[in-house]
Amino acid sequence: MGFAYLTNIPLEKAREDYIGLLKSHGYGPKTEVIPVWDACGRVTAHAVYAHICAPHYAASAMDGVAVNAKDTFGATQTTPIRLQPHQYTVLDTGDPIPENCDAVIMVEDIVKNEDGSITIHDAAAPWQHIRQIGEDICAGEMILSSHMPVSPAAIGAMIAGGVLEVEVIRKPVVGIIPTGDEIIPPCTDPNPGDILEFNGSIFSAMVRQWGAEAKVYPIIPDKFQQIKAAVAQAAEECDLVILNAGSSAGREDHSAQVIRELGEVLYHGIAMKPGKPAILGCRGATPILGVPGYPVSGIIVIEQLLKPLIDHWLKVPAAPSVSAKAILTRPVVSGLKYQEFVRVRLGYVGDRLMASPLSRGSGVVSSFMKADGILEVPQGLEGYEAGSEVTVRLLCSEEKLKNTVVVIGSHDPLLDELGDMLHVADPSVYMASSHVGSMGGIMAIRRGEAHAAGCHLLDTATGKYNLSFIRKYFPNGGVKLVRCVGRQQGMMVAKGNPLNIQRFSDIAREGIRYVNRQKGSGTRILTDYLCAQEDLDTAAIYGYDREELTHTSVAAQIVSGSADAGMGIYSAANLYGLDFIPICIEEYDLLIPDHAWDTPQIRQLIATMKSAAFQEKILSLGGYTVENCGEIIALD
Amino acid sequence: MGFAYLTNIPLEKAREDYIGLLKSHGYGPKTEVIPVWDACGRVTAHAVYAHICAPHYAASAMDGVAVNAKDTFGATQTTPIRLQPHQYTVLDTGDPIPENCDAVIMVEDIVKNEDGSITIHDAAAPWQHIRQIGEDICAGEMILSSHMPVSPAAIGAMIAGGVLEVEVIRKPVVGIIPTGDEIIPPCTDPNPGDILEFNGSIFSAMVRQWGAEAKVYPIIPDKFQQIKAAVAQAAEECDLVILNAGSSAGREDHSAQVIRELGEVLYHGIAMKPGKPAILGCRGATPILGVPGYPVSGIIVIEQLLKPLIDHWLKVPAAPSVSAKAILTRPVVSGLKYQEFVRVRLGYVGDRLMASPLSRGSGVVSSFMKADGILEVPQGLEGYEAGSEVTVRLLCSEEKLKNTVVVIGSHDPLLDELGDMLHVADPSVYMASSHVGSMGGIMAIRRGEAHAAGCHLLDTATGKYNLSFIRKYFPNGGVKLVRCVGRQQGMMVAKGNPLNIQRFSDIAREGIRYVNRQKGSGTRILTDYLCAQEDLDTAAIYGYDREELTHTSVAAQIVSGSADAGMGIYSAANLYGLDFIPICIEEYDLLIPDHAWDTPQIRQLIATMKSAAFQEKILSLGGYTVENCGEIIALD
Repeated sequence: MGFAYLTNIPLEKAREDYIGLLKSHGYGPKTEVIPVWDACGRVTAHAVYAHICAPHYAASAMDGVAVNAKDTFGATQTTPIRLQPHQYTVLDTGDPIPENCDAVIMVEDIVKNEDGSITIHDAAAPWQHIRQIGEDICAGEMILSSHMPVSPAAIGAMIAGGVLEVEVIRKPVVGIIPTGDEIIPPCTDPNPGDILEFNGSIFSAMVRQWGAEAKVYPIIPDKFQQIKAAVAQAAEECDLVILNAGSSAGREDHSAQVIRELGEVLYHGIAMKPGKPAILGCRGATPILGVPGYPVSGIIVIEQLLKPLIDHWLKVPAAPSVSAKAILTRPVVSGLKYQEFVRVRLGYVGDRLMASPLSRGSGVVSSFMKADGILEVPQGLEGYEAGSEVTVRLLCSEEKLKNTVVVIGSHDPLLDELGDMLHVADPSVYMASSHVGSMGGIMAIRRGEAHAAGCHLLDTATGKYNLSFIRKYFPNGGVKLVRCVGRQQGMMVAKGNPLNIQRFSDIAREGIRYVNRQKGSGTRILTDYLCAQEDLDTAAIYGYDREELTHTSVAAQIVSGSADAGMGIYSAANLYGLDFIPICIEEYDLLIPDHAWDTPQIRQLIATMKSAAFQEKILSLGGYTVENCGEIIALD
Repeated sequence: MGFAYLTNIPLEKAREDYIGLLKSHGYGPKTEVIPVWDACGRVTAHAVYAHICAPHYAASAMDGVAVNAKDTFGATQTTPIRLQPHQYTVLDTGDPIPENCDAVIMVEDIVKNEDGSITIHDAAAPWQHIRQIGEDICAGEMILSSHMPVSPAAIGAMIAGGVLEVEVIRKPVVGIIPTGDEIIPPCTDPNPGDILEFNGSIFSAMVRQWGAEAKVYPIIPDKFQQIKAAVAQAAEECDLVILNAGSSAGREDHSAQVIRELGEVLYHGIAMKPGKPAILGCRGATPILGVPGYPVSGIIVIEQLLKPLIDHWLKVPAAPSVSAKAILTRPVVSGLKYQEFVRVRLGYVGDRLMASPLSRGSGVVSSFMKADGILEVPQGLEGYEAGSEVTVRLLCSEEKLKNTVVVIGSHDPLLDELGDMLHVADPSVYMASSHVGSMGGIMAIRRGEAHAAGCHLLDTATGKYNLSFIRKYFPNGGVKLVRCVGRQQGMMVAKGNPLNIQRFSDIAREGIRYVNRQKGSGTRILTDYLCAQEDLDTAAIYGYDREELTHTSVAAQIVSGSADAGMGIYSAANLYGLDFIPICIEEYDLLIPDHAWDTPQIRQLIATMKSAAFQEKILSLGGYTVENCGEIIALD
């Protein structure tokens, strides 16, 4: 296969043309007949009419006696009438009205006599207290119209109307074919180069959420004939087919040619990012969608191009997406040539909704998990500046966003534990934390973008943490600094310390590969400070420019053998089974703006920090002290 | 059993006390471990941590060659460097970086030489174009916190992090026990007095929608020991139990006593309507809810008192209900002693949301199916006047309400067929029709409560239909009258006409039981007119005051034998297999206000009326003519 030609069709046009082509080939719903009690949430294929009336007999609406109204005419308080036993029938609510009776008198309105007769003091109007036949539903009446979702009450109405089976739209079956020589089934100990197959699980869950069935086929290697056979089989067995990976123009990318040989390719290449290499194809009335291998690309392609096909099949009007106006915390640069979908993390700070763009790497599936919204940058626009007001499509409820504590700043695993306990204590409260380093956190608080920031900034002049920075960046106050933990900083090295690293300055030794933290992080500031103290030339340290965003990712590089040493906290070294050379104990505190202080969420956060359960959990991670955790630190 | 004492506890207090009692008995979630790929929508029991990094090896982010960056230092456009075959490795995106390599150069940036070497014109920075280990997820990192719903992307993130099983909150199992001697399983030919068991199906569908499992037990007769045994078994096998029917204080109502003997009853009798006789009980930590037999009461009780228990189990914060302000079209009278839940039908007319109260009969399950919203009248309030602005809880989307054509007026089955075809033609458009008679429809249009009204009003002076009424009630215009159908009116009588009814005046004969339509309906106006013409004393006609709201319900009374004759249209007689004595052909037209005329929904409605498919369907019902259907009738 050579490089195939990729088109650059605008997404909206591609979607319309695709559904148009498929409709012209006869794409559309098939139906099935199922028991009514299994039909909740399913969509009716045709209008449903009642077979019988409900109630299907004239029934008493009260506990009382049935009478013939004529027998009661003339009864008043002063001229009561006696009815003999043959003139009335005792009945309960729901009992059928006997022949020759046409009214019910409530039990409260009759007087029983010893001879078995009853006395009444009021005439009964014909048909009083009787549920007429068909009061609820009449035989022949339309209970549900075509293409309507079946609700629980509709199930009741159908059964009451004598309808026990209903023809509904069959769930379309989406066949999902993972391909790739390097792809292996999910496991816990993959070898280097192995790529775990999880797209099939993601795509299955997505299409099931949209009302379809999913059928995941075994992984097919990058062999043209094998892929072709698998696609032909799936097109036979399923109503829609996703061919995963192999949709770009690389050397092993057979997808477009396979689809072309089996049917037709409408477009190969859509003006969207991620997802550009998508292939819109079909075999007859069966859509075959070629989806890029990167999970984020695949998710966007399936949401933008497969979901409309499922909606069309199920005859469900596409739910309008819920959007909100938000302020961008960082600029978003986009290409003019495509429509871009940027995942954003959202949070209300005061009444402003702040949107922070997440990693745009197509391979970063966790960014999709963390995303609260999608910012769509239209084709032809270069992006947005920080501080712009943009419209974002929400992936969660506004309610959740309003109850989310936004934490931006230095990374520490304790934040995850804190967020976890916070949510367990009150299921309506959430925490969203982003790792941008201590200085990034201070700036986020200054710009009003966060409710709290973790920071551990060493004032090299005083040897104290955080205080001088707070005074400098918040000269007029407006913030509180809350004691969180003391934590052990040091050098992480491989288990057994094979390179015999003993002191900080060893990172400058020939043959030592260092891995650093990003600029602006407290750990980097500490590292730069230690280098200056020891007179080390940072330009000469191998890997000093190799930056990781978290303690754990530094540890991960060392444990994998791609680096020999990196500064970080004890708990990260402990987690990865690394050796650790202690260097100092630093103070890691939380900075909280006054405007957030007295909110229920922050009150709950502080209460959690002060709880024995939280402090025990943190101590169990190793390398922490928790004295005065949750107490306000005096700023002067 | 005697009459048990019923309390009248405010709903809010009852709910809080109930959950408090259950928590004190240990009510709460149980967990189970399931494969990650089956976990979509489930709620995590504990925080989930990654077992491995993703990527789990340093991987190429590009198609190109892996090199040792040091070998490339010094390369520029003018001083290119040649790398020999042993100095580079060709790789594709995703391939692992070989030992001793620390950078990737893109395929576009290399020149291949004939001797197998490559030439580069730029130095590679260490770690360029390499996806670092843990770029997406680091081993040990918290992927998901406790009590969080699992999204498709989270499934991908867990598999990428080497997590193949996850402990989630087990779906609570709700046992549902139907009771009652008169209750029979769903069937299509019940005998008088039989009550079809459909509550179990409704309740099952409801609890499944809320994330629980449902287990419906066989119907138990009204025998104390049998009910007690069934409840004891269900409390053993399930996490929550619904005991249906038998919760009021009637003579066969054993529920409270059964629950008391098996455990405890917190309250019997809640200040709510419908649903007052509910019983809040438990056996140990297992809630046992006694639910009234009427379906509407049961639905409200389960929604108000069982759903909070399921939410608590599933650790899902209760979704905030969506409400809207609406104008009441009719008064709602409520009792001071209870909180009332009134089902309403909603529709936007212009930008005003109009709320029409539906039947408040507890047995009318179709009212719940038709309801778009619930109006809650608080305890202590007597109700609301027509025209009041009230807050209603929405049961459907605002979007749907905005796309619903509201038809109020005279009943004809063709309206259901029209609504059906309208929705099939455009799944985003809906019709909601209410039957209040022709005059009611005209008044609804005058008050701005509807987009269309069906009417067939005979001007007895001119013998013409509708026109004089339109002129009278809309002297300044503002409406259009659209030709719909001509339809055959006549007398419906039992099959074979056993009482030999030959002419209209026969309804006054001794022994004939008439069934009438409600005042204000076009058919009633016609009937009154015919009575006046024939000089009949309506007070002497048996059943003249017995009013039904639709043609089909009149037909249903005759077919069941509870009435002998009733005026109605041919299609209703035809549907029920009744004999029919033709009396006249009337014009049934649609009245549409100008403000609604040019909306997409009404344009679609008119297009549907003009379609051959619709007209053929109507003709197939019998008794209709369709000339000029969909054309505007000149008003002058």
